[in-house]
Amino acid sequence: MTPIELQGQAAKSASRVLAVASTGLKNAALEAIAQALLAHTDDILAANAQDMAAVKASGMSVSLQDRLALNEGRIRGMAEGARQVAALPDPIGAVTRESVRPNGLRIARRRVPLGVIGIIYEARPNVTVDAAALCLKSGNAVILRGGKEAFHSNQALTEIMRAALADAGLPADSVALVQDTTRASSTELMNLTEYLDVLIPRGGRGLIRAVAANASVPVIRTGEGVCHTYVDRAADLEMACRIVQNAKCSRPSVCNAMECLLVDSAVAGEFLPMMVPYLDEYHVELRCDERGKAILGDRAVAATEEDWDTEYGDYILAVRVVDGVQEAIDFCNLHGTGHSEAIVTDSYSAAQKFLDEVDAAAVYVNASTRFTDGGEFGLGAEIGISTQKMHARGPMGLEELTSSKFVVYGDGQIR
Amino acid sequence: MTPIELQGQAAKSASRVLAVASTGLKNAALEAIAQALLAHTDDILAANAQDMAAVKASGMSVSLQDRLALNEGRIRGMAEGARQVAALPDPIGAVTRESVRPNGLRIARRRVPLGVIGIIYEARPNVTVDAAALCLKSGNAVILRGGKEAFHSNQALTEIMRAALADAGLPADSVALVQDTTRASSTELMNLTEYLDVLIPRGGRGLIRAVAANASVPVIRTGEGVCHTYVDRAADLEMACRIVQNAKCSRPSVCNAMECLLVDSAVAGEFLPMMVPYLDEYHVELRCDERGKAILGDRAVAATEEDWDTEYGDYILAVRVVDGVQEAIDFCNLHGTGHSEAIVTDSYSAAQKFLDEVDAAAVYVNASTRFTDGGEFGLGAEIGISTQKMHARGPMGLEELTSSKFVVYGDGQIR
Repeated sequence: MTPIELQGQAAKSASRVLAVASTGLKNAALEAIAQALLAHTDDILAANAQDMAAVKASGMSVSLQDRLALNEGRIRGMAEGARQVAALPDPIGAVTRESVRPNGLRIARRRVPLGVIGIIYEARPNVTVDAAALCLKSGNAVILRGGKEAFHSNQALTEIMRAALADAGLPADSVALVQDTTRASSTELMNLTEYLDVLIPRGGRGLIRAVAANASVPVIRTGEGVCHTYVDRAADLEMACRIVQNAKCSRPSVCNAMECLLVDSAVAGEFLPMMVPYLDEYHVELRCDERGKAILGDRAVAATEEDWDTEYGDYILAVRVVDGVQEAIDFCNLHGTGHSEAIVTDSYSAAQKFLDEVDAAAVYVNASTRFTDGGEFGLGAEIGISTQKMHARGPMGLEELTSSKFVVYGDGQIR
Repeated sequence: MTPIELQGQAAKSASRVLAVASTGLKNAALEAIAQALLAHTDDILAANAQDMAAVKASGMSVSLQDRLALNEGRIRGMAEGARQVAALPDPIGAVTRESVRPNGLRIARRRVPLGVIGIIYEARPNVTVDAAALCLKSGNAVILRGGKEAFHSNQALTEIMRAALADAGLPADSVALVQDTTRASSTELMNLTEYLDVLIPRGGRGLIRAVAANASVPVIRTGEGVCHTYVDRAADLEMACRIVQNAKCSRPSVCNAMECLLVDSAVAGEFLPMMVPYLDEYHVELRCDERGKAILGDRAVAATEEDWDTEYGDYILAVRVVDGVQEAIDFCNLHGTGHSEAIVTDSYSAAQKFLDEVDAAAVYVNASTRFTDGGEFGLGAEIGISTQKMHARGPMGLEELTSSKFVVYGDGQIR
């Protein structure tokens, strides 16, 4: 067996123990992890320094370096995150449907863990602890495959968590880190059907698409966000300015940020000039269709076809003038990634139509798309935002890391 | 675009209409389909006669011919099936979670259709109507890819349904039949990610495994069943005999039939000889491990390693003696397909342990595995029995053909 197959086998075996571990034991393990992270802060920082030295030498961009860097505050944040997950309700064991059939069979559908979850992610080492904590609390074993830039940091974090798990009385193999950070290990995970129940890629669009296209293991696609805001003729235009500014500028790098503004032609002449100062504050580049550019003149550049399908992740906004809510809906459904879409309107019928007909994980009336987030939605924590329709859609909390089984109590029934 | 891409595009467009169609309209369309099937019985029988002539000439086995053959009674059954689906509750639109956040955002999770469902299936033409009815009621468009043996029958059924849909005011493209029945069309469907939201293979193990391994479209695996029954030392042995007979013999070709009997070594010497007459009635071949064969002598043949992983679908039973419930659980988890597993026992602790630790869609105490079925579980109808953990597990009814979206009502919230 390959090293990854051995990790898979060990994780599967650990998952059998985790599946029936009590809430108290899982919470104690999370607390042990939190304490161990704090106690080993120096070791983690030393490992992180190795990673940082390598990426500085390789000339990685400062913003990527910042995502990789750890300090005492960030380690405290990881420990705090593990404790927050411990404080969440345990999703496992709940009966979500139960009936007694005419023949006397009692049939209950019980929530159970998925089993073994694989996570392929990029440079942020905090994902290592966040993801492990959420998987543990939901009774799943996890195989982590982080990026090579963060390898030493991830390795230190994983070893600390494994030791803490063993101390708490759960299998160390509940959490494993893939040691090979070449493309070969991702490919192997994508086809590890014997041991992996699901694979969640977290990172850029290229990573996610490659995993979804090539994996034999079931995949949950997360975090691709070409999000629209549509400003309807019946909008409160002042409110629309604030929402557009927030959706575009509050954190442009994240997946729930707006990439494309749609404006009803009935109000475009009034709204677009009104909106410009809000975006000037952040020096947002505007890429407009012809009608938009006719209104905004030199403030905008001409959009190309490619702009309508681009997730900028930056202070750039595509702008398009549309003739009413139907055209806005059709445009969202054609060019959106099924993440988050918003309408700003005071028209009851336009709002209902948009909510009903736009096909996305989250659809908003009169609010910023930036709220699509596990914490903001009240799920407590999230492992990602699913943009697919199967299994889970939108922010994924602990319940979305579970499956179910039917438990049937008989007294000799035959069919 | 290829013919299948054109069908995909048309189905996606139809799915937008279906997603917001009222329950009344969908039910009226199902009733129109039922009436049209009855009114066109002669056309369906004529098409079926073409298929039957071809398979008779090709020397297809009589049991497969029987699966393909239609008559007035079977057509009435299809029409009745469509009416039964109409009578089921509409899963679409229900709010499954709702909260008002501290900032005043009202967030509701609403049940919505998956979109466009692809179904690849083998020779039984009744699947054409069953699957279409379930997809329609759950607001999904469906692209059907049946086997070549049933092509004329499927074509006649599909044309009748499409005309009935149009008469009822829904898009004819809500239901489509792939015209190419070569392997190329299956391969194309497996990669039709732009239009298909999910692909459900229904048929033999080879088909299901090939689709799961090769599809880029999300797949729901259904109907692979290597099911076990474990007779514990604390079993009522008379009850165990009846359950074993029923699980093996009542319909051995289906996926919830038992393939392997596990017997506790503490009672094997008493139970196995007691059970033989129940299986003699059906001339069941027994393939035993060494300990079982020592008890059953010439009534059994020696099992090979392959037997422990074989879905016979026939009057053949693998038999193995195990040392207690833990070994039984481990054996089920290693060799089962995650479909249905049963324990026969009067031991509370053995029963609980088996229910907790066996990892399968349905786990039984003191009942036949043959009950794993949408109708028997009270779901009304089923599109298949999922043996995977993601999205749906066990019998899949209308709810399992849905996804969700978060609908968020704001009054200007920004983050």
